[in-house]
Amino acid sequence: MNLRPPVYVLRLGHRKERDKRVTTHVALVARAFGAKGFFLTGDCDEVVIESIRRIESRWGRGFDVVSCLSNWGQLLEYWKKKWVTAHLTMYGIPALEVIDKLRRIDKPVLVIVGAEKVPREIYELSDFNISITNQPHSEVGALAVFLDRLYNGLKQNIVYRDAKQAVVPSPKGKKIVSLE
Amino acid sequence: MNLRPPVYVLRLGHRKERDKRVTTHVALVARAFGAKGFFLTGDCDEVVIESIRRIESRWGRGFDVVSCLSNWGQLLEYWKKKWVTAHLTMYGIPALEVIDKLRRIDKPVLVIVGAEKVPREIYELSDFNISITNQPHSEVGALAVFLDRLYNGLKQNIVYRDAKQAVVPSPKGKKIVSLE
Repeated sequence: MNLRPPVYVLRLGHRKERDKRVTTHVALVARAFGAKGFFLTGDCDEVVIESIRRIESRWGRGFDVVSCLSNWGQLLEYWKKKWVTAHLTMYGIPALEVIDKLRRIDKPVLVIVGAEKVPREIYELSDFNISITNQPHSEVGALAVFLDRLYNGLKQNIVYRDAKQAVVPSPKGKKIVSLE
Repeated sequence: MNLRPPVYVLRLGHRKERDKRVTTHVALVARAFGAKGFFLTGDCDEVVIESIRRIESRWGRGFDVVSCLSNWGQLLEYWKKKWVTAHLTMYGIPALEVIDKLRRIDKPVLVIVGAEKVPREIYELSDFNISITNQPHSEVGALAVFLDRLYNGLKQNIVYRDAKQAVVPSPKGKKIVSLE
């Protein structure tokens, strides 16, 4: 699997109690839709990381997770110097207008998704502020649609390295094949 | 706004403490991507409903919410007799293979999204079991991509009835116009 441009997701402002489920959804969406990795900042939370590892042990590896990132400012600066940063926000430019540009630039994209309040600097520091509808909804939904559209990937079913099992799409019930 | 076919979302198995944030995301995604309404079953939870009403008071009305639905079986039976039911699950048939059929049938679709464990009957009773990737991720992400693809709607910016404000898409920062 070598989707272009490669995407890494930075989850900002995670709070352990409040966000553990939503942040896990963000990470699993990133993985399922072909992002290469995930940076978690805010509270340092092993629960999220363990959930991803549990999924990976059955469904395969190949998704990098950096937990407990203490200084997102540094990461952003580093990334901006070499590559591209894109912040998902309902206030940004509609995704389809930006996605073609991202494809042309074809450099690793750091996609930033915030929890409740996103610091103003993020809007300034991001190369792109991108909206997935201009209505308030969910960073999980926004990331899923962004990646789906970027990779045009709805039909694509990624099989990750060392997966122990895979789904056989079925009109009723659950069919799984073992890959071991 | 008259998107075809009309979609209503049924959220199954909501538990107050565990799911309040994720269920709110499900409802807001349904609203933002053009679903007409939302049924909540499982725990009876006013917090979710209040969150939607708060969003509506600023961003506009026109999204029906039925909270505290006690008997989802009855709703499903009723719906199946007249219209179409579709369950989003990683075990189902890829969405793009089904979406064309749904458009042709052109009847109201009840889209079912579960919390952790979905009863086996749902797989049996649903006219369609539809996957958004065959990897485990998030019902929020699945619903967003499903609606985005069904309505081919990424560029579309719905303005709801009685909205007090609207976003002006902006490359940096937040721009809002008052509609009052």
